[in-house]
Amino acid sequence: MTEAVDTRGRLLDTALGLYAEHGVEGTSLQKIADALGVTKAAVYYYFKTKDEIAHAVIEPGLRDLRAAVTAAEAQRRHGARVDTMLDGLADVIIRHRTLVRLFNGDPGLQRIVEASVREYGGVAERMIAVLVGPEPTPEARVAAFVAALGMSGTGGAPEVADLDDDQLRTALLDAGSRAVGRPRRR
Amino acid sequence: MTEAVDTRGRLLDTALGLYAEHGVEGTSLQKIADALGVTKAAVYYYFKTKDEIAHAVIEPGLRDLRAAVTAAEAQRRHGARVDTMLDGLADVIIRHRTLVRLFNGDPGLQRIVEASVREYGGVAERMIAVLVGPEPTPEARVAAFVAALGMSGTGGAPEVADLDDDQLRTALLDAGSRAVGRPRRR
Repeated sequence: MTEAVDTRGRLLDTALGLYAEHGVEGTSLQKIADALGVTKAAVYYYFKTKDEIAHAVIEPGLRDLRAAVTAAEAQRRHGARVDTMLDGLADVIIRHRTLVRLFNGDPGLQRIVEASVREYGGVAERMIAVLVGPEPTPEARVAAFVAALGMSGTGGAPEVADLDDDQLRTALLDAGSRAVGRPRRR
Repeated sequence: MTEAVDTRGRLLDTALGLYAEHGVEGTSLQKIADALGVTKAAVYYYFKTKDEIAHAVIEPGLRDLRAAVTAAEAQRRHGARVDTMLDGLADVIIRHRTLVRLFNGDPGLQRIVEASVREYGGVAERMIAVLVGPEPTPEARVAAFVAALGMSGTGGAPEVADLDDDQLRTALLDAGSRAVGRPRRR
């Protein structure tokens, strides 16, 4: 059992590494098997298609995002909900930095993520609803999207790949908080 | 001559309309010819490949963006440069709203835009340099990307497609300005 879990985990790590090089579309079960040094049948034991593997690769990121949204929704006041949401989003972006980076440059991965987000109980819509708050004015709606899309887009941008996790996390959270009108104190 | 210009213009409008339905990859010269009610040879007179057409479709947007960057660079003080840049970016997003919307959902269009941006004298890098200003701290760099990616990503988001141009423009400019630490007064 432990060995099975390990193999599955190694398989997903290997797939993520290959995505960086070949994209999701260009990463066949055979390529993953070759990189792992196993037969294609061994990969097939865990996953039947390359889409299944891609779904499994992004699943931890979506699970963490859902947990962050749930934590934000549990707050009472709108301000605390927004702060908790942006803090959680920054955490998810940093924790899954490789995945976020690949996402920005890989249409194949974008397709899989979009399908998964839909399956994942509308986690993106819930995040936006928390950020927008009780008064969905045009200003509030646009600010919510600028913060969320700006933070995730920037987190994966090659131009900030030189920043370490702490620098990037703090700067993303600062800019996103300002965008929704809740500048952070230092 | 005027007729030729008109035909070329109609051809590009038709292509943009077909992109919304079939994506860039799925919009052949034949499809464009059929939609225009002309022969494929007539389309071929103006453009040899579907990539050439896609380049021509996005060219006005890139030209407007370059003009906005140039106007911002002409300002003396950093604050005025940032304000002019974000104002110009909001204008470009609104003026080319259909294109921006398609861009977000069409990997084929993203590929063409990325190639064109490179050819277009690094217009994206110049925009970011203006927003970052004289001190390229991690905070300033990240804030510049959050504003630029957040505004353009949101401008094309289907979730704000119901807003009219003025509402969207003002809200984008407000959120982007806050993100870079220059909240606008009303």
